[in-house]
Amino acid sequence: MAAALTRHNVPLRPHMKTAKSIDVARLALEGQPGGITVSTLAEAEYFAAHDLTDILYAVGIVPQKLDQVAKLNDAGADVIVLTDDLDAAGAIATHPRPPRTLIEVDTGESRGGVSPDDDALLAIADRLGVNLAGVMTHAGHSYAGRSVADVARIAEAERSGVVHAADRLRAAGYPAPIVSMGSSPTALHAVSFEGVTEVRAGVYMFGDLFQAEIFTHAINDIAVTVLTSVIGRRPGKLLVDAGGLALSKDRSTEAAPRDYGFGLVLDRMGQRTLGEAIVRRAYQEHGVIELDPGYQMALPIGGRLRIAPNHTCMTAAAHDRYYVVDGGDDVVAVWPRVNGW
Amino acid sequence: MAAALTRHNVPLRPHMKTAKSIDVARLALEGQPGGITVSTLAEAEYFAAHDLTDILYAVGIVPQKLDQVAKLNDAGADVIVLTDDLDAAGAIATHPRPPRTLIEVDTGESRGGVSPDDDALLAIADRLGVNLAGVMTHAGHSYAGRSVADVARIAEAERSGVVHAADRLRAAGYPAPIVSMGSSPTALHAVSFEGVTEVRAGVYMFGDLFQAEIFTHAINDIAVTVLTSVIGRRPGKLLVDAGGLALSKDRSTEAAPRDYGFGLVLDRMGQRTLGEAIVRRAYQEHGVIELDPGYQMALPIGGRLRIAPNHTCMTAAAHDRYYVVDGGDDVVAVWPRVNGW
Repeated sequence: MAAALTRHNVPLRPHMKTAKSIDVARLALEGQPGGITVSTLAEAEYFAAHDLTDILYAVGIVPQKLDQVAKLNDAGADVIVLTDDLDAAGAIATHPRPPRTLIEVDTGESRGGVSPDDDALLAIADRLGVNLAGVMTHAGHSYAGRSVADVARIAEAERSGVVHAADRLRAAGYPAPIVSMGSSPTALHAVSFEGVTEVRAGVYMFGDLFQAEIFTHAINDIAVTVLTSVIGRRPGKLLVDAGGLALSKDRSTEAAPRDYGFGLVLDRMGQRTLGEAIVRRAYQEHGVIELDPGYQMALPIGGRLRIAPNHTCMTAAAHDRYYVVDGGDDVVAVWPRVNGW
Repeated sequence: MAAALTRHNVPLRPHMKTAKSIDVARLALEGQPGGITVSTLAEAEYFAAHDLTDILYAVGIVPQKLDQVAKLNDAGADVIVLTDDLDAAGAIATHPRPPRTLIEVDTGESRGGVSPDDDALLAIADRLGVNLAGVMTHAGHSYAGRSVADVARIAEAERSGVVHAADRLRAAGYPAPIVSMGSSPTALHAVSFEGVTEVRAGVYMFGDLFQAEIFTHAINDIAVTVLTSVIGRRPGKLLVDAGGLALSKDRSTEAAPRDYGFGLVLDRMGQRTLGEAIVRRAYQEHGVIELDPGYQMALPIGGRLRIAPNHTCMTAAAHDRYYVVDGGDDVVAVWPRVNGW
């Protein structure tokens, strides 16, 4: 990801929502300016405590969270917040310790944000006053892309939309030093970042089955798996002790070209030696693996497997730490995560 | 649940997999013998440390977990384990500190367990030797029941199957002091528990939208909700700061008569004053609420709502504590949970 963006001479503000780990953040920040993106204030507190202080909190702010943001900023952080709402902008502007704020722009996902051409853009800017620091957008609908060309087209709409919003602000006399866009697919496949000052991406750090299906990386590059043990054997099936709580109930790949159920089954070394075995059902603590008919089962009770996840953001959040392995299955480090809110 | 089982004169061994809380366990155990069921050894350790020592670990045991069980039992607990596998039975029998063991019996769910008439039942009993403590079954397929009569029929198959397995063991000279069955729906709606020595149930303690759909309780009896704040407003929609991580990605109600998306929206007091509003989409930290067309939106940015979950076992596991309210929204207690493994 860093290499792809360096070719465009645009910096990466890695989104730590997937990894939630200072150890991973340090890897992601190699050669970058040092700013990060977070999805919770718990992440903001954790990373600020680890001296990463340039933080974009990329979920719409509510007034009752401004005191917590102020406390972080008083302690030396620069937490930038996000809004698409006139009342929230008013609450920011009248707060005794207002943070720098980006206006969220909708470039096609229709989740949050004002349209680049909406009058609300200028009204919110006016309300924010000196606290306005620019614009940001997230083309989450890039996840619906089914070819690199699809994703590149969505990336261009994301770029041109957010740059257009910045241009409108500047034309009206407002500053817009930050023009932020990004999702892992659009960050990787955009043809141009002209006018963009930073790119956000997160899930690429680990990858998952869904991202592999939408061309973010190869399936063998998935870096996070769930280790599990065989607890039952039936013809054509294995019962394992990783269920919905360990894997998450995410079914992202249901909408992908290839449906991996609740995950793809790898051997204990993380290799695809079991054919196309997938986790077909996920109970709370039980997973039911459907074996590839071509695979001859040789796993004992207690035998270890790894499950590659549909959606790493969800699966990693079920665990409070990473056991880091380096090629094999010897644990060479344990990296904690900051879960919760 | 306790009242329903008391009418049948059968004790409850509450399953703590949903609540994972000593405070809730104490409520569930009022008037009961004191034995509990758990789904992880982390739960077993936590509850044993809180002096609940009669513990059924109701997930098939693997040899590598026997040392951890032995350590608990050496410290005064009586952790009973479960198997349906001859090799696992052998590992138990040859362990220096073997736990009491139940044989898992399949009474129709086809997840784990041997059929009551299978020769494997007697072979596993033989392998377990003096460690055999009885039989257990779980009619998880009761979740597919669509009437009380359906559930009662499944409950009777659950009961007769597990009792038949116990009878076969006894006829062959093996003891079966414990005959354990249960799921919240079958525990509540069974017509008879003849021959059963204990009933397990867990999700009934909190309930959820799915259980309400399958007649376990009324929808107003759901005891766990997720508090969230409005972070964005659009025509007919609200964006809230509870997404897939706070609600889980569980979609149980997809298969129920009424599909609640990712949860039913209640007001901050937990009342249904917002009509039929549901969480239609769940991103990592964003939920998109589709408002009932009949509802006139009056919620400000930062306004609070509560989301009733599809599947409490999954949703509660996303949080490390309960904020207990009593009627209103004043927090009267904070109860921790034991998450993880």
